[in-house]
Amino acid sequence: MTQVAAIIGGGVIGGGWAARFLLNGWDVRVFDPDPQAQRKIGEVLDNARASLPGLYDMPMPAEGTLTFCETMSEAVSDAHWIQESVPERLELKRKVYQTIQAHCSPDAIIASSTSGFKPSELQGCATRPEQIVVCHPFNPVYLLPLIEVVTTELNADLVEIVEGDLRAIGMFPLVVKKEIDAHIADRFLEAVWREALWLINDGIATTEEIDEAIRMGFGLRWAQMGLFETYRIAGGEAGMRHFIEQFGPALEWPWTKLMDVPELTDDLIDAIASQSDAQSGRYSIRELERHRDANLVGMMRSLKARNWGAGAVLNTHDLSLNQRAIVPERLEDVADISQPIKTIDRAVPIDWTDYNGHMNEARYLQAFGDATDRLMLIVGCTPDYIASGGSYFTAETHIRHLDEVHAGARIRVETQVLNGEGKKMHLFHAMYEGDRLLATGEHMLIHVSLETRRASDPAPQIAEALTRVAAAHEGLGRPEGAGSAVGVR
Amino acid sequence: MTQVAAIIGGGVIGGGWAARFLLNGWDVRVFDPDPQAQRKIGEVLDNARASLPGLYDMPMPAEGTLTFCETMSEAVSDAHWIQESVPERLELKRKVYQTIQAHCSPDAIIASSTSGFKPSELQGCATRPEQIVVCHPFNPVYLLPLIEVVTTELNADLVEIVEGDLRAIGMFPLVVKKEIDAHIADRFLEAVWREALWLINDGIATTEEIDEAIRMGFGLRWAQMGLFETYRIAGGEAGMRHFIEQFGPALEWPWTKLMDVPELTDDLIDAIASQSDAQSGRYSIRELERHRDANLVGMMRSLKARNWGAGAVLNTHDLSLNQRAIVPERLEDVADISQPIKTIDRAVPIDWTDYNGHMNEARYLQAFGDATDRLMLIVGCTPDYIASGGSYFTAETHIRHLDEVHAGARIRVETQVLNGEGKKMHLFHAMYEGDRLLATGEHMLIHVSLETRRASDPAPQIAEALTRVAAAHEGLGRPEGAGSAVGVR
Repeated sequence: MTQVAAIIGGGVIGGGWAARFLLNGWDVRVFDPDPQAQRKIGEVLDNARASLPGLYDMPMPAEGTLTFCETMSEAVSDAHWIQESVPERLELKRKVYQTIQAHCSPDAIIASSTSGFKPSELQGCATRPEQIVVCHPFNPVYLLPLIEVVTTELNADLVEIVEGDLRAIGMFPLVVKKEIDAHIADRFLEAVWREALWLINDGIATTEEIDEAIRMGFGLRWAQMGLFETYRIAGGEAGMRHFIEQFGPALEWPWTKLMDVPELTDDLIDAIASQSDAQSGRYSIRELERHRDANLVGMMRSLKARNWGAGAVLNTHDLSLNQRAIVPERLEDVADISQPIKTIDRAVPIDWTDYNGHMNEARYLQAFGDATDRLMLIVGCTPDYIASGGSYFTAETHIRHLDEVHAGARIRVETQVLNGEGKKMHLFHAMYEGDRLLATGEHMLIHVSLETRRASDPAPQIAEALTRVAAAHEGLGRPEGAGSAVGVR
Repeated sequence: MTQVAAIIGGGVIGGGWAARFLLNGWDVRVFDPDPQAQRKIGEVLDNARASLPGLYDMPMPAEGTLTFCETMSEAVSDAHWIQESVPERLELKRKVYQTIQAHCSPDAIIASSTSGFKPSELQGCATRPEQIVVCHPFNPVYLLPLIEVVTTELNADLVEIVEGDLRAIGMFPLVVKKEIDAHIADRFLEAVWREALWLINDGIATTEEIDEAIRMGFGLRWAQMGLFETYRIAGGEAGMRHFIEQFGPALEWPWTKLMDVPELTDDLIDAIASQSDAQSGRYSIRELERHRDANLVGMMRSLKARNWGAGAVLNTHDLSLNQRAIVPERLEDVADISQPIKTIDRAVPIDWTDYNGHMNEARYLQAFGDATDRLMLIVGCTPDYIASGGSYFTAETHIRHLDEVHAGARIRVETQVLNGEGKKMHLFHAMYEGDRLLATGEHMLIHVSLETRRASDPAPQIAEALTRVAAAHEGLGRPEGAGSAVGVR
């Protein structure tokens, strides 16, 4: 049976909840008196539909039905889950709960998105306080998994149901053991926000400099390990206790405007060290380092593909590495066009390897695809040319996997042009580690108009360059493996 | 000419600097009286060699030469860059600079890795104070790009040279305009560290819960946008000024133990809003949202491939999505084995598309590779079987790209077994969006022993399952496109 979620308050947060439930197959009823609510939630939904389903390797359920309700009672009457995301004013929230509870099932979960209030405060004047819990999400709610779940002694028994429902929509419930103002994560955000305001106020740094100080450094660490697992590594072989003993004294320095610090008693140090053992003790420090590095490589390479943040720094460095002209960019850079042209020269990234411990088959094609891009560049199919509306699309590919290769190995691809006539570009790539032939890739590309998405003739200068290379490569003869079909010798 | 860097202090930080310089082609001279220094730096170098080169799409320069020196004078005498990473004691650092300056070139850069001291403090008793700057890195130094550069009025003119050298080794220098205790990033780390100690001290959260509160939520945001660009989006269409006006009052709440807050004067609000415009104003809020989402999808999917943090949450959700048995896991799940077997059913992730706006060619092979993995699972080549030493490796692949597909589209792959005799597994995958045929993939796999890495017979139950499917699929006939070579109709 399709479950029903009521969304009370449809701003950025409520809209994110609506998207999360809807795309996980729940029916969603929204109540928000804002006349723009429908448009705003529609925009959040568009973003969610473009991003969330592709996170999974399975299809998500069929979307539920989205209904905008005229009254709160209509929204909540048959809801199993009621998510309140109205502005952070206690009196307003309490009033909303009174209206909700006049119309909802006594078995429904009433969850508040509040970032500041404790559940006991929210329960204050309620008819059935035991229905009300805190489920504090993080923007964008449709992508980020964290939900802080806080209950009181009145309804600690709800935790299991709440966790189950949240996991069913792909979230990560973090149960906060004792209620506290701002729960856990927002206390950190608040501490950093205050410090940032001081830095701007005192003219030390701009908003941009502060963001760079975060995303070029510890932001990347925190996305995968958080604070303590990171510091466990920093403690090195001597461990967490050593780290605290070494850096604990720094806490007494005037590093922030905000100075009250708990005393580092033996008990506190013991608590931290043993909790850290429980959390990360199954890995040695060396193993943690390798996990950290592989995580960082994967994340930074994904940012690199988007030319964003730390990934843009990598792209800039690529340009300076290539100034040594290791891989040609123009036909004039090619010393001897009668020989296969080097189109790739690089190390195998950690994130190109798979459960078999070697480079994954799809990454061979990624390298061959990059080699094709480089050959296109060399014959004049530049980013400017592509922006003007022409490009080559791959129509057909034949790969022979001849030997394995592992992370860190330096590979190169040498490319022979078999045919460059008309709309066709017929390439044969050979991938090597040193003298060892790892794979070959035979590719037929067709020049297309990016407007019509149909085959079209390339610009004359590209046709000329391509046929010149093809003619120069004719003397090389047909490479072994070219023109063969799968399973045919 | 090869440049020379001297590393004074070879712990985790000094070792990271050594790796960064060395892999970027510099000669490196290390001085550290610790008898374990050589082993420790060797371990850092192993990690760096495995991770750093693959971040780039170009080869790095040939590694420089690493020398361990008996004396500081030997290490620094011909160095262009001298990186000091000794323990955080001012008197010790000042003594080290005196020794360094007795032997180094007056033109060398003397950079301190200090996280706490201001450059004016470091320059205090130096012979040539104008040589000394702060270049504060972040662990792991060989991967994270951020370096905080701080000078004094004595040597602000060095900034350009320092930035140039740091960029040449792939780093992101952030010049701190005014010297301040702990520079910028560590003030944030310190604020969060204090708050974390309180949470543990007061029994609110464990180290693990704190780390989850970070890495499942705002850590992912900060890895790509930092604090202010994230909040600019949270302000929505009303912008940064609205965000501050809405959330500014929360600063007066008792959310942390650390309460001193600058007054939100009009001047401060103006400064923040205009700095944020300068930083991010070239994007609309909607555009920023889409960049954020695409960054998050890429990073979370890279963590998913490693089954780590937020990525492990995605894998868990995949399992629950598949409990609806949308894609079979065992031969018994297949309703009709005389028909092609569904082996993929999923949405196209944002990070699978490329500059042409459609799914990148390598991702077709990734999907076909996943389909092959699923077919292997169905015939009994399970993770347990692979752990016991047998698997299939792809020997040959032929892909025909027949139509385009875009991010968010739901694709499926149906798989026909052409041959399953002996060591061979000959598959034909067809990829569809609805009724539209997008591509076909023909694959020859060979069963191998993971110990010898050579062809071997599969276990009898796998051979039996595979031949049973192949026999059932014989009635389907040879699919169009099977057995063909590139460029041959």
